[in-house]
Amino acid sequence: MICVLSGGTGGAKFVDGLRQVMPAEEITIIVNTGDDLLWWGLYVSPDIDSITYVLSGMLSRERGWGVRGDTFLCLQAMGQLGEPTWFHTGDRDLAVHLLRSRLLAEGKTLSEATSIVCGKLGVRARILPMSNSRVETRVDTPIGELSFEEYFVQRWYQDPVNSVRFAGASDAEPAPGVIEAITSADAVLIAPSNPVTSIGPILAVPGIRDALVRARGKIAAVSPIVGNAPVAGPAGILMAAQGLPSSIAGVAQAYEDFLDVLICDTRDARAADAIRKGGLRVQCTQTIMRSSDDKAALAREALTVVAGGLLKDEPAADGTVPRFGQP
Amino acid sequence: MICVLSGGTGGAKFVDGLRQVMPAEEITIIVNTGDDLLWWGLYVSPDIDSITYVLSGMLSRERGWGVRGDTFLCLQAMGQLGEPTWFHTGDRDLAVHLLRSRLLAEGKTLSEATSIVCGKLGVRARILPMSNSRVETRVDTPIGELSFEEYFVQRWYQDPVNSVRFAGASDAEPAPGVIEAITSADAVLIAPSNPVTSIGPILAVPGIRDALVRARGKIAAVSPIVGNAPVAGPAGILMAAQGLPSSIAGVAQAYEDFLDVLICDTRDARAADAIRKGGLRVQCTQTIMRSSDDKAALAREALTVVAGGLLKDEPAADGTVPRFGQP
Repeated sequence: MICVLSGGTGGAKFVDGLRQVMPAEEITIIVNTGDDLLWWGLYVSPDIDSITYVLSGMLSRERGWGVRGDTFLCLQAMGQLGEPTWFHTGDRDLAVHLLRSRLLAEGKTLSEATSIVCGKLGVRARILPMSNSRVETRVDTPIGELSFEEYFVQRWYQDPVNSVRFAGASDAEPAPGVIEAITSADAVLIAPSNPVTSIGPILAVPGIRDALVRARGKIAAVSPIVGNAPVAGPAGILMAAQGLPSSIAGVAQAYEDFLDVLICDTRDARAADAIRKGGLRVQCTQTIMRSSDDKAALAREALTVVAGGLLKDEPAADGTVPRFGQP
Repeated sequence: MICVLSGGTGGAKFVDGLRQVMPAEEITIIVNTGDDLLWWGLYVSPDIDSITYVLSGMLSRERGWGVRGDTFLCLQAMGQLGEPTWFHTGDRDLAVHLLRSRLLAEGKTLSEATSIVCGKLGVRARILPMSNSRVETRVDTPIGELSFEEYFVQRWYQDPVNSVRFAGASDAEPAPGVIEAITSADAVLIAPSNPVTSIGPILAVPGIRDALVRARGKIAAVSPIVGNAPVAGPAGILMAAQGLPSSIAGVAQAYEDFLDVLICDTRDARAADAIRKGGLRVQCTQTIMRSSDDKAALAREALTVVAGGLLKDEPAADGTVPRFGQP
């Protein structure tokens, strides 16, 4: 069993690789819910959606979020009704928000709702929200405190960031199965997600960081930073706001109390040497995931590094990647 | 001021005619909410929607319900999630359900939510739900009691009907403005809607029927029955279940305590004579509304019959219908 900690975009790509090289049934993904928002009265969980969609084969790979080939007629109509439209929910995508919102209104937890949606969509991996309590990532900017989606989507992360906090985190509990997934996993992989606002909220839920510290010896993180810039999104700005260098050193620092191996891009070979001198294992590889093969190769590398014994199969001579665990 | 009591389909056509021959600002429509349903967790009010859409120019005239040119991608996705899909909500249509549901969740009444939606869509007539209390039309059939939409849409009104009741009606109050709209109107028009399940729920709200009795002298109803069959839908079956003949005589009987004039189709001239002998005024005209001109002509006829003085303008020689009240 593999446990992955993940946000949305980069995490979804990484999970897309993992499912190519091992059975989905053996993957548990603990997903950030700090970005969750009430949108048009519906409960939307952007990172859970991205992970759900990638695992059900529905994700729009062009956009990196939402449903492939989706249309936006309802969004357009909402605009005509004077409702906000900055958060783009497609017509097909809405179905998941409607179902989840109804399940929550009926008293189900977010874990239960997620499990039901995954079941309906044929997702065989286990997706766990980090918590069933509401934890909200709040970004403090000169114009005031914003929700993560306001900062990221509505305002295109153009505002300077003073600080980030996770409202509600101190009272939150890990969702059922989260701690056990970490401690019992053969390997824990931190996806190449934003360390501050994707992995940070997960780590802020009391008990999760401690479980990772207890799980040392099997934990690898893939850096979402290449050179001094994030592969995508505002990770660099947000890391700086939290006092972390925008570099693989900053990623190493964010996870320093539990990380065993940092996986970074070959372009960071020099920075990797410096980190190694500090005592952390660092593995350099190709971390930019453009193609399906890139994703599979990175997933394979991550598994090899931290749990080599789990990876029974190598790519065949014809270049196909056999399924994990199959002869 | 004109007050119209209306259901959805036939009522929407009639209102479409009225708005051609008089200023929309002078029309108040009291709308059946007995068909309202929770659909995918959203509050849907089918008749209010039809009246809203026709007055905002959005109604699909082909279907007679929903939004013109709408798509059904979310519906399809809901089907893939295993959710019911028998009630067809289009992607643009969903926007209204989402907005209304959010307003209701925020504590607004159905009247307030309706007024807000109408304002956003530029509807200048006043649409009043019959009540802000939940009144549910329940249709008793051999397979059990069904909601109106289950009976009508899900099961294509194929079930024999034992009886119809309006659950919650005895505890309901008319929505604000309803009684005053009836008593202060220059004319009250009962749209060619199903007397049992479209107008019936309105009449079942305590106080409304009494107000109509007090308003006698200015009340006309357009028969939804031509010959012995409804123009559309299950009115005939439902009237029979309530002990009413499926004919214009049945319509007259349904409204006998307050009706001044029954407007029926020219094809019912003979039946009209019989009713006249009973003492009711009956006006025969073309009641089937196929074209926009048909709708305008019927609306004009209805106004002429019951409130001739209000209709200042006749069709011009070039066939155009001048706006009501304009020189």
